[in-house]
Amino acid sequence: MREDVSGPVDLANWVCPMPLRDSPTIVMGHGGGGAMSGELVEHLFVPAFGAAAEAGMGDAAVLTVGSSRLAFSTDSFVVKPMVFPGGSIGELAINGTVNDLAMAGARPLALSTAFILEEGTALAEIAQIAAAMGTAALGAGVTLVTGDTKVVDAGHGDRVYINTTGIGVIDEGVDIRPQRASAGDVVIVSGDIGLHGVAVLSCREGLEFGTTVCSDTAPLHGLVAAMLATGADLHVLRDPTRGGLAASLNEIARTAKVGVALVENDLPIPAEIRDACGLLGLDPMYVANEGKLVAFVAPEDADRVLAAMHSHPLGTRAAAIGVCVPEHPGMVVAKTALGGTRVVDLPAGEQLPRIC
Amino acid sequence: MREDVSGPVDLANWVCPMPLRDSPTIVMGHGGGGAMSGELVEHLFVPAFGAAAEAGMGDAAVLTVGSSRLAFSTDSFVVKPMVFPGGSIGELAINGTVNDLAMAGARPLALSTAFILEEGTALAEIAQIAAAMGTAALGAGVTLVTGDTKVVDAGHGDRVYINTTGIGVIDEGVDIRPQRASAGDVVIVSGDIGLHGVAVLSCREGLEFGTTVCSDTAPLHGLVAAMLATGADLHVLRDPTRGGLAASLNEIARTAKVGVALVENDLPIPAEIRDACGLLGLDPMYVANEGKLVAFVAPEDADRVLAAMHSHPLGTRAAAIGVCVPEHPGMVVAKTALGGTRVVDLPAGEQLPRIC
Repeated sequence: MREDVSGPVDLANWVCPMPLRDSPTIVMGHGGGGAMSGELVEHLFVPAFGAAAEAGMGDAAVLTVGSSRLAFSTDSFVVKPMVFPGGSIGELAINGTVNDLAMAGARPLALSTAFILEEGTALAEIAQIAAAMGTAALGAGVTLVTGDTKVVDAGHGDRVYINTTGIGVIDEGVDIRPQRASAGDVVIVSGDIGLHGVAVLSCREGLEFGTTVCSDTAPLHGLVAAMLATGADLHVLRDPTRGGLAASLNEIARTAKVGVALVENDLPIPAEIRDACGLLGLDPMYVANEGKLVAFVAPEDADRVLAAMHSHPLGTRAAAIGVCVPEHPGMVVAKTALGGTRVVDLPAGEQLPRIC
Repeated sequence: MREDVSGPVDLANWVCPMPLRDSPTIVMGHGGGGAMSGELVEHLFVPAFGAAAEAGMGDAAVLTVGSSRLAFSTDSFVVKPMVFPGGSIGELAINGTVNDLAMAGARPLALSTAFILEEGTALAEIAQIAAAMGTAALGAGVTLVTGDTKVVDAGHGDRVYINTTGIGVIDEGVDIRPQRASAGDVVIVSGDIGLHGVAVLSCREGLEFGTTVCSDTAPLHGLVAAMLATGADLHVLRDPTRGGLAASLNEIARTAKVGVALVENDLPIPAEIRDACGLLGLDPMYVANEGKLVAFVAPEDADRVLAAMHSHPLGTRAAAIGVCVPEHPGMVVAKTALGGTRVVDLPAGEQLPRIC
């Protein structure tokens, strides 16, 4: 948080601080998980919440209750269309929150489900989404323990919006958070990137590709458990959803004040994703994933963590893609295929709105 | 749950079970907190979730983690208009979830906040709502620890929808749940009913009253703590929000399979609420409250609980309004002012949509 906006909010004289001032209203980019989303939290929500806000307000909070450490995370899902190759808003709503808990090193325990339904939505459609949620929850081993349903007038929703909020338990000795990224860490990605974003985009009106790319939506806590079982000290985990790998790596670099140096040729990007992104003018590093993680691991642990990942169904294509460096703190740079170097910036808004 | 719908959902042949079959689509009444809301959970969500759903899916789940018992509750807020006499969607979003935790006898600990913002919403308006949330959270002693923001296209939201989900801790010896209502219990309400619903309705377009009724939005955990401090065995607590006192009492009566016998003359209803309800054709027992609770207390404890409530700022107008009886299990009846008896039914839908 910048010092100049950390005081209490003077509502009578409230002026959008820079850079929010450029737009006095919400634009789609504020929901993209990039710089504009960060600014909304940093310049609007955190100062407005004041002393009630916990410092950080990250993807998952860690709470100590009695002798237990709990992870606690919330996510709303507004993906459009609601059904896409490889999944639906139902699987996303379960796996998304399960993954936010897993990225804090937690074993997911229980989820709440809250629906905002638009008047006129077919009950059969809601039942299909709810069934997908049930199946995904069983698959992830979490229980749906409490819920809420609200209905809004036609024209004030988009059939089904879902919020899931989850509680997980963090075992003793596990300490996974972005602040722990340090120079020397090996940066590992668990598999092919760009699938979810391209899958959702491929079935939006007017866009057609030659092949069908399926979303990679999946619960990642099992893969994390396999990585932890090696005894390795995992420093950071993050699921690169909105804003893709670029947004996740930039956030970690900024939080830990370290540099990240990638080797572009080492990024696992399937040919059909390269082709689709080429056609659409997208960079795969900025496209959302829903079943991938990026890990920062001490160099002496990297090999055994990679081996454990390769033995897990969700990590067969895991790859080391770079290292954490003391140079250029807060920045992500990539060695290009041609031998040059480019800066991989934090995206401003989002190339693909309503992707999750 | 009825036996005939408890099996796995056959999606290919899914037909809305009765009574949902009457409407194949979502109508406003499904969000009213009455019979239709209950049917949606019982006939659609619970069977579709299948084995992943915890039995009950009540207002707050109780989880055992390590040596602690946690309450866990979620609520989305879609109230229209967002600002009304006495409060805004911001206070509601905090107090509503705090109260759901308090009704399980929990001390509220931490809340998540998730926003679905409509493109084009003024940042200044969001800042005001967020500031109201911060103030309410400080007032209730809860921390806002994690959050999420999504943006939807103009025409697919209504400026600001908020989900809050909360965690609270239940002290040893506290066992408050609807199943514990039993014949002989005294039914107590903590104060005047009908304020929130009338306040929201009073500022909807085209409706004008002589007086300004303010919403009663308030956090009730302090009042609950005062009631527990008497050492009394509180059997049931419930905050009568959507569907009002009538919906809450019917749900408790059905869950515990007991009857509830009210004395209409003993209900604390201010004259301006009676007048407004008369004008609008509403029954105050069906109008939402956001800062009131109803308690079921063993008869030997009733006097000291009432005394403790009268000493608390949020319970000065607390009153015993009836008793729990072995007759007519699952039904709520009221002795009318004229000496007759009427059935106080579970509302079907909701007289007032988008009230919270």
